[in-house]
Parts: sequence; C-alpha cells; structure tokens
Amino acid sequence: MTGTTHDELLALVSFNADGLVPAIAQQHDTGEVLMMAWMNRDAIDETLSTGRVCYYSRSRAGLWRKGETSGQVQHLKELRVDCDGDTLLLLVDQEGVACHTGRRNCFFRAVRDGALVEIAAPLVSPEALYGHHSHD
Amino acid sequence: MTGTTHDELLALVSFNADGLVPAIAQQHDTGEVLMMAWMNRDAIDETLSTGRVCYYSRSRAGLWRKGETSGQVQHLKELRVDCDGDTLLLLVDQEGVACHTGRRNCFFRAVRDGALVEIAAPLVSPEALYGHHSHD
Repeated sequence: MTGTTHDELLALVSFNADGLVPAIAQQHDTGEVLMMAWMNRDAIDETLSTGRVCYYSRSRAGLWRKGETSGQVQHLKELRVDCDGDTLLLLVDQEGVACHTGRRNCFFRAVRDGALVEIAAPLVSPEALYGHHSHD
Repeated sequence: MTGTTHDELLALVSFNADGLVPAIAQQHDTGEVLMMAWMNRDAIDETLSTGRVCYYSRSRAGLWRKGETSGQVQHLKELRVDCDGDTLLLLVDQEGVACHTGRRNCFFRAVRDGALVEIAAPLVSPEALYGHHSHD
C-alpha cells in the first residue's frame, strides 16, 4: 500500500474522541462475524503494513497484536471502511479461535425462544491459550 | 421474551459512558455484514419487543427506527451478545438496502492492490429513499 493510499484511507476514518474506531473482524470465506475491537491510527498502520491484525487494547492502553500470546493470529485479507468512515470491516483468516473464552467467535450468547442461551462451547480451554495470562 | 430474560440480557450488556453499545447488523442467511450502529437500553427493548430493529441515533440524539423514512426495514431474526457484553450482533432480514447511500451494505470502500476503491454501486438513489431528507 502506498503512502498516498494510506493517507487517503486515514483521511476517511472518523476517529472518536479517544482516537479510536471500531473494527469488525469477519472470517473472509465463511462470513462468520468473529469479534469487534478497536483500532487507533497506529493499529491500522501496523495491520496494513504487516498483514496481521493489530488492535488497540483499551484496558491495556496499548497496541494489541491479536494472537501474540495465544497464537490465534488473524491474517488480513481485506480492509473496508463504511459510508460514514466510523467503522472498519476486516476480512480475515482466523487461526484457531477468535474469542478469549476459547470459542471460535465472541457472539456465543443469544436470545432464543424468550431465553438467553449459550449457542457455542469452547473449542479449547483459555488455560491452554494463555497459561496464566488472561486475554491477549 | 420474558421480563426476567430481558433483565438478564441487559445485565450482560456493558453500555459506554453515553449509555450506548455498538450493534453489528448481519444479513441472517447470506452472512453479509450490513452496517454498524449504536443502541441504548430503549432501542434494545423496542427491538426485542417489536422484532423491528431500532437503533439510537447519536446525531439526532433519539431512537432511530431503521427504515421509518426510507422503508428499508430490518427484521430481527436473532440478537447475540459478545463475551465481554460490549458488542451486539443482530441477525436480520434487511428489506432493500441498508446504507443511506443506496448501497446494500455500508462497507463499500476497500483497500485493494494498494488503492482505495469502491467495490459496490448504489442499487437505488438516496433521493428515491429519502426525498429531501438525509439519512433515516
């Protein structure tokens, strides 16, 4: 990606007061929505430069290279921007599981038939992913 | 949905300082990510009660019944909550187009081969959707 295109992209993005924009990660081939997280300019920059998705962790106040602890890396296939420039859509190839609970995606609780139910079980234990760490 | 389930759901949701939570709308059968918008408690309440998606418009500071001006209604198929309770995923059946530009979804600009390109054209003109109004 050229510097010009990079600037053109960033000029479209409407960052919030904290300098962040929400980014939806979607598995590129199946359409599964994996997770939503936040990016700042540096995270977008790094993601486009490396092809590996990097978010901004609000809890840790720093760049969050998805999978750096857990190994559950997201490879970027395509980055899209919405009409208002205030949301990004990342088409990715997710290695393993996206959710820190060990589930494939983070949206595993649903309202069905008037009840709140879990619709997916962990595929791997969080301990196996993180050892004594929490989240990545 | 029972009041108990409703309370149980809302207890899971982590609203931001403005009382809002981001909600991703995904076409339930094709997996297409249509848009991202925000909901407050009342919007979630109304959406679950009516089965028609209602967001909260930050620009208008009020409930935004998707399609009330444009006719491009979203019928709720299922509401899901993510692991941290800070994002909702709405599986919907979108009538017509989701984007106020007249495109099927809002994510019509992509970075491809180092350039920022439009990857979808409007299916209907915004004037046909809104007349003299902007957005819905």
